[in-house]
Amino acid sequence: MTDTRIQPVSTIISAKWICPVRPHNKVLEDHSIIIDEDRIIDIIETKKVASLYQSNQHFQLHHHIVTPGLINAHTHAAMNLFRGFADDQPLDTWLNDFIWPLEKKWVTPDFVHDGTLIACAEMLKSGVTTFNEMYFYPEAASRAIKQSGMRANIGLFVMDYPSNYANDGEDYLMKGLEARDGWRDESLITSSLAPHAPYSISDKTLNQVLTYANQLNLTIHMHIHETENEISESLKQYQIRPIERLNRLGIISPQFMAVHAVYLNDEDLSTLSKESASVIHCPTSNLKLGSGIANIEALQKNHINICIGTDGSASNNKQDVLHDMQLASLLAKGMTKNPAILDAKISLDMVTINAAKALGLEDCIGSIEKGKFADLTVFNMDHLSTLPMFDPMSHLVYATTREEVSHVWVNGLLQYEEGHLTSIDIQSCKDIALRWQLKIKQNI
Amino acid sequence: MTDTRIQPVSTIISAKWICPVRPHNKVLEDHSIIIDEDRIIDIIETKKVASLYQSNQHFQLHHHIVTPGLINAHTHAAMNLFRGFADDQPLDTWLNDFIWPLEKKWVTPDFVHDGTLIACAEMLKSGVTTFNEMYFYPEAASRAIKQSGMRANIGLFVMDYPSNYANDGEDYLMKGLEARDGWRDESLITSSLAPHAPYSISDKTLNQVLTYANQLNLTIHMHIHETENEISESLKQYQIRPIERLNRLGIISPQFMAVHAVYLNDEDLSTLSKESASVIHCPTSNLKLGSGIANIEALQKNHINICIGTDGSASNNKQDVLHDMQLASLLAKGMTKNPAILDAKISLDMVTINAAKALGLEDCIGSIEKGKFADLTVFNMDHLSTLPMFDPMSHLVYATTREEVSHVWVNGLLQYEEGHLTSIDIQSCKDIALRWQLKIKQNI
Repeated sequence: MTDTRIQPVSTIISAKWICPVRPHNKVLEDHSIIIDEDRIIDIIETKKVASLYQSNQHFQLHHHIVTPGLINAHTHAAMNLFRGFADDQPLDTWLNDFIWPLEKKWVTPDFVHDGTLIACAEMLKSGVTTFNEMYFYPEAASRAIKQSGMRANIGLFVMDYPSNYANDGEDYLMKGLEARDGWRDESLITSSLAPHAPYSISDKTLNQVLTYANQLNLTIHMHIHETENEISESLKQYQIRPIERLNRLGIISPQFMAVHAVYLNDEDLSTLSKESASVIHCPTSNLKLGSGIANIEALQKNHINICIGTDGSASNNKQDVLHDMQLASLLAKGMTKNPAILDAKISLDMVTINAAKALGLEDCIGSIEKGKFADLTVFNMDHLSTLPMFDPMSHLVYATTREEVSHVWVNGLLQYEEGHLTSIDIQSCKDIALRWQLKIKQNI
Repeated sequence: MTDTRIQPVSTIISAKWICPVRPHNKVLEDHSIIIDEDRIIDIIETKKVASLYQSNQHFQLHHHIVTPGLINAHTHAAMNLFRGFADDQPLDTWLNDFIWPLEKKWVTPDFVHDGTLIACAEMLKSGVTTFNEMYFYPEAASRAIKQSGMRANIGLFVMDYPSNYANDGEDYLMKGLEARDGWRDESLITSSLAPHAPYSISDKTLNQVLTYANQLNLTIHMHIHETENEISESLKQYQIRPIERLNRLGIISPQFMAVHAVYLNDEDLSTLSKESASVIHCPTSNLKLGSGIANIEALQKNHINICIGTDGSASNNKQDVLHDMQLASLLAKGMTKNPAILDAKISLDMVTINAAKALGLEDCIGSIEKGKFADLTVFNMDHLSTLPMFDPMSHLVYATTREEVSHVWVNGLLQYEEGHLTSIDIQSCKDIALRWQLKIKQNI
């Protein structure tokens, strides 16, 4: 006997198009996503909804594309407060004369909380539901993230240089682990160890990082091979390239997220590939700081999992991973002279399922599938700049901007709708940003 | 004796910041632009306005940056109706299997009128006041442009291949010159000869193009050196590179706009430089079609005037020259590993005064100066994604998107304000785009 009762659910989203990402390359037309509590419980043809489910929250999105929530796989959210502070500067001037003195002067728990909150607001408006964070004072960041309703993987920042936040490797680690205790019960927050970069961390500290990562089953999130200089310095100091050094220490693994990876030789590629590490490509930051252009074709040939990060707003200057995904696709086409490389569906993978995999969250997010958390981004394609439309998937990647983001759900909750955030007050974010701007400007 | 009367004027714009472009590198704070009829008649400190001028149209823009109206130096506006039609396709497939058959099937005067109107709407919303146009049926384009209130330089399209529009070089030329007669009294429309590309035009037709350009004092707008293949084909057919061939014919001059110019050797650079030609760099299109990346550093070293074009929406897929300017700057930094190249002020030049110069309109537009036409673009910087702000000029180039465009004046008339166009109905543009989308899709 068929059960004919209609099931009440939290939310129904009936959309013109759904790009579920898995199964790959599929666009569902006139389908609905059924959400109960925090999970996607069904994806069915819209005409079948009325006989199966009902909800007080039924969204009819007639001109819209729904994708998995976008994932920004590398940022320093709090740096939104330094947005555009030192544009057009060579990398060493940028770091030595601007960013590091600024950080020394200004970075406090309040700064990190405020900057992170503002970045969360910008990311939500840009269709991002999850981000992979690395900065000082992770506890302060976690407070802002909790408020925002976003999902995040917070890096426990580690290096051997002293800063306002900590004195040495051990101190960073202890503070990070203590901070982690504060969010261990939060279902939306996970953690990774975040050693800054090979050149700022000793082998001893890296060994400790690895021990904790193994004990606590955490991913490792690290800048590597961003510039040629970093590699030649390593060759001088250790007689091996940074990736080789990390590999000998046992750091490179499926849990390793290699941020930037602009300069990789065949051995580096082979190591990352063999160890199933992920690469976080940050094309805007790499261009803007004159670092160079990562070889995406080589990463693909080596079957390396590629994700996209915005990097912090001092080197981007936006928290708009959709834009960086588009840039990655265009750059790869131009560099290889092959317009078919990084096509629309592979580009969308980079900011969804690939990033979920890198974060160890492949079973939870990154695609619109039954049983996954309801992290969803909606684009309204009824815009002057997105019409006509012949292929929703490629339009999403090449014609759409964050302007078209109309709704964002995180963990089943509607966090953004048509200019309004649910959990963050945009005006107060602007006020906070202005207050910091005044303070910093007065002290230049 | 001082004249104490207060002068009535058409419009006063009091802005927090003005980037006049000339004088170079200057940002005026708390200044006002005084417009009478179609011209800028004064630029003064805002505190002095009340004692000198008054207007019923006084705009108080407390959080805004005013720049000269942006100039899109190369597009095929009507191709907005093919937006995203053949993404991720290799160039020859894109042209031979998609674009050319599509054009043969669909391009009519109605198509060109409708597509151009939609592109005008998108460009105005993106802060563009002037564009440099090249496509079939220029008469139809001119009707849409007149309606839009934009300024444009319309190319009289010429090639030797037959199309729906014309049969051979002579036919194209005659039709173009006849079309030009229709807009010769329009103050906002100028004309250029627009030979398609070296590979689609014979020497005979190029000689005719040159004769008319000289007789009528028109600029010449042409695609050149977009791909390596174009150069090797020329070497086979003419035993010289296309630029050398054009130069021998006398085509290269200060009136020559070389679109793309991705592949230039030292001789090409020297020719363009000696003859004071302009290059229209179209970075998105060159990346997307896998053409390559133009060497901006070499152009700069040769003191060549560089402008920015979006190209048509089938190869971009946006009419957003602000985005292409930003991409040009980032690309140049990444390719040269020099973050200081194409800095913010030089980038802004490319989409304003440089383009005005290329179009032969340097005395009329391209900067905010007394006596120039009042073509102005305003950005509202009171946005989550543009705060904090430490340097208005660099923020404009690296953090701002067309989302922040709040007002656009063309020739003294307010054509765009906060989502609304004065002369074009956005809903009817969307309806037109959808109608063409349906027609084209039904016939694929």
